[in-house]
Amino acid sequence: MSIDRVAIIGLGLLGGSIGRAVAQHAPAIATSGYDADPAVRAKARELGLVATISNTAADAVRDADLVVLCVPVGAMAAAARDIAEALPPQAIVSDVGSSKQSVLDDLRAALPGHAVIPAHPVAGTEQSGPEAGFASLFENRWCILTPPEGADEAAVETLSEFWRKLGARIEIMDAEHHDLVLAVTSHIPHLIAYTIVGTASDLEEVTRGEVIKYSAGGFRDFTRIAASDPTMWRDVFLNNKSAVLEMLGRFTEDLTALQRAIRSGDGDKLHDLFSRTRAIRRGIIEEGQDDERPDFGREH
Amino acid sequence: MSIDRVAIIGLGLLGGSIGRAVAQHAPAIATSGYDADPAVRAKARELGLVATISNTAADAVRDADLVVLCVPVGAMAAAARDIAEALPPQAIVSDVGSSKQSVLDDLRAALPGHAVIPAHPVAGTEQSGPEAGFASLFENRWCILTPPEGADEAAVETLSEFWRKLGARIEIMDAEHHDLVLAVTSHIPHLIAYTIVGTASDLEEVTRGEVIKYSAGGFRDFTRIAASDPTMWRDVFLNNKSAVLEMLGRFTEDLTALQRAIRSGDGDKLHDLFSRTRAIRRGIIEEGQDDERPDFGREH
Repeated sequence: MSIDRVAIIGLGLLGGSIGRAVAQHAPAIATSGYDADPAVRAKARELGLVATISNTAADAVRDADLVVLCVPVGAMAAAARDIAEALPPQAIVSDVGSSKQSVLDDLRAALPGHAVIPAHPVAGTEQSGPEAGFASLFENRWCILTPPEGADEAAVETLSEFWRKLGARIEIMDAEHHDLVLAVTSHIPHLIAYTIVGTASDLEEVTRGEVIKYSAGGFRDFTRIAASDPTMWRDVFLNNKSAVLEMLGRFTEDLTALQRAIRSGDGDKLHDLFSRTRAIRRGIIEEGQDDERPDFGREH
Repeated sequence: MSIDRVAIIGLGLLGGSIGRAVAQHAPAIATSGYDADPAVRAKARELGLVATISNTAADAVRDADLVVLCVPVGAMAAAARDIAEALPPQAIVSDVGSSKQSVLDDLRAALPGHAVIPAHPVAGTEQSGPEAGFASLFENRWCILTPPEGADEAAVETLSEFWRKLGARIEIMDAEHHDLVLAVTSHIPHLIAYTIVGTASDLEEVTRGEVIKYSAGGFRDFTRIAASDPTMWRDVFLNNKSAVLEMLGRFTEDLTALQRAIRSGDGDKLHDLFSRTRAIRRGIIEEGQDDERPDFGREH
């Protein structure tokens, strides 16, 4: 099995980056694409994100060996229904969504009999839209595949090889575990970033101008994440509810314990935690998952 | 009034950066320095962070027009006592601490009759120690001065001019308001970053290896802040307790409201917040307080 033609449905940051990465790293693979927004299709044509832009999702997938759905996870079911009729029987259907159990359920319900192998490349920026993508987005990032039990192994390997060509490293796990892991490494961080930015925006005693001026004290880091696409993130929280609420419970317990330590003046408890947390950053840098330069290499 | 000789007590990230910035931007000002740690003094000599490194704090300040205390806020009182005897009567005493009411109280108690003008340059990185500093750290960053009521206006202007020479912009406010503003733009962001990194490190269902591998989903941003100096941050929370607890209460209320929205599937409430939070990032970039490149300009 090999991929000769890939169809990308949804041409925002992720879809556009896949198109660009294929053109750069696997130019023998033909690309087609579709986006529900005519303005995005026009921009994608202008930028040449994929070779052929169709005016319907069905047309985009008609000759595809692989279809990658790059839409918010709440729109996966509708996107799958839109391609159902035209989808070649042997095509692999995958996606890039941040929650996997809901996507697996939605795609299997809409596309019975098709090879559905959900995937999540853990990569992105705070920007969105067809102009935001770039070919190197997936380099040295992990792409998690969550094939259902009994999935065709050859199809899993074919999809893995596709992502490896774009520079990604592959991990395979079940959808439920993915959703728990990503709740802590991605969904809760986004939730608390959105929250603190909201809190800071709504204060009466501290003006918005003050928040902006003194944001270099740490707050500005959170505003990057809190500038992410609202629809994408709304859908993540609605579709990974139980894992998010579970991990949020753990976070809140830990925060309450620190609050108590501050109130009681327990400096040792604070110092102990603040010392332990350094190790995990070293691990991230050693694993090549972050820029080792101070302050992410920001310009000073 | 002008500054001809500045003494820097504490030669870590902030003290070292002031030394380097003076050498670059105001080379006519003579610099002396001291650090309580002999290894830091030796490294500071090797790096030439200041022109003269003394073996006691008293010796370092003996001829100074301006003394800048660059030690954790919990060590300010002891540092002030150490210089009290040798401090020239007309010298301005300032600092770089992240909480200001506690520092103002500590310095005035230890140095009665001296011109005490606390200051907080809102700048830094996650690194610490004498090798971490650099001359451009303060460029285009705000330095907040919190002179006590009745402070000598000429001294305030002299200190302002010193910081302007290092590239900083000056704001003046009272210490109590500073502590409230910085609680939200700096202290709470650090507290929640330390907390989530601690939560993720302690999970049983998700391994530390998984947290590291998939950290590019958002978590890695928090690990940078949570790699900051433990002693400095312990002291901030112990010395700005009431403002931190107040702002933490607001944050927790807002987080609970979002938790409820997730539980009840209220997508509109989530989408509304996630849309509002983008504006403040635009403000920060327009104000020159963050790198406008996607992902802070991280290397991909």
